[in-house]
Amino acid sequence: MKTLLLATRNEGKKMELQEMLNDIGISVINLHDIPPLPEVVEDGKTFKENAEKKAYETAKATGYWCLADDSGLVVDALNGQPGIYSARFAGPEASDENNNHKLLDLMKGIDESKRTARFVCCMALSTPEGETLVVEDYCEGIILRQPVGEQGFGYDPLFMPQGYNQSMAQLSRQEKNLISHRGKALNRMKPIIISKMSE
Amino acid sequence: MKTLLLATRNEGKKMELQEMLNDIGISVINLHDIPPLPEVVEDGKTFKENAEKKAYETAKATGYWCLADDSGLVVDALNGQPGIYSARFAGPEASDENNNHKLLDLMKGIDESKRTARFVCCMALSTPEGETLVVEDYCEGIILRQPVGEQGFGYDPLFMPQGYNQSMAQLSRQEKNLISHRGKALNRMKPIIISKMSE
Repeated sequence: MKTLLLATRNEGKKMELQEMLNDIGISVINLHDIPPLPEVVEDGKTFKENAEKKAYETAKATGYWCLADDSGLVVDALNGQPGIYSARFAGPEASDENNNHKLLDLMKGIDESKRTARFVCCMALSTPEGETLVVEDYCEGIILRQPVGEQGFGYDPLFMPQGYNQSMAQLSRQEKNLISHRGKALNRMKPIIISKMSE
Repeated sequence: MKTLLLATRNEGKKMELQEMLNDIGISVINLHDIPPLPEVVEDGKTFKENAEKKAYETAKATGYWCLADDSGLVVDALNGQPGIYSARFAGPEASDENNNHKLLDLMKGIDESKRTARFVCCMALSTPEGETLVVEDYCEGIILRQPVGEQGFGYDPLFMPQGYNQSMAQLSRQEKNLISHRGKALNRMKPIIISKMSE
């Protein structure tokens, strides 16, 4: 069935037109039927709280199955910073470059052995009805002394995964997905998506 | 294919997740893929200009096939008022009742023979690419001295179609659709919808 959008919020017009178009197999929607985009405020205190909130509110508002992740970099020498503030470490409108720069500054005097860190990914799946399921996974590594590599995004150029001698930003997407926090969290989530979405 | 909405505008995350979910037949979209709702300003000088603008801008913004109508009541004794201002005759936030009240006030001293009017409907169909087709039709009648009937909307309670002794608001939806400006315009548009949307 093909969908025709009426450029109106008038429900009277929608009813009239749907009745007149039923016989030619056209489904009529109006502007009320296009889901509004929620502006979710990420004010949780943990990755889990933020992921759950984003998935739940977006699914509720739009009627879609919704997957949200909240992820970030946890640096031991910085007592867990930037953590849930990873995307806005250098300020609310910070670019990846700004954030990387701030991290390098803070890590200046810190020894090799104390540069341990992990990427954390918490992933939440919400049904349109609001049922929410959460998984979490990690990727251990160390913080480099300068950005390396052009792939990926975020702190990838400053992060060398355990057992590698390349930064996360030097790995191909396929390589990264195998070992990254998000790849591993998604692998946990996949069987849940398969079983829930085929219910 | 089932659709999973990612609660993010991050295109990097979308690419990563789509790649990892390809094998289980899930299509990933993110918040950028939910169409924004355009706020179309109805500043045309004719029904046709407004209908074309609404259909074109809404189709362009959303990617849907889009049908818009601009319709209104043209009263001879009022030099064509309310015309394209029918929905906002009594002010920008006017209700149907406010508008009907204003119309009755203006028509107070006017004789039976001079109460002729017509509903006009201009209907525009726009493809997502922006091709726009327009049809127009009318329903002749007279303006009553008080509202009658509970069906329909807008000026229907004050409008008696030619050849009827009931107001438009006393007709069933089926009866109204047969003779109304919008019903007749849609009958002109239907073959266009059928041929265009099956191309």
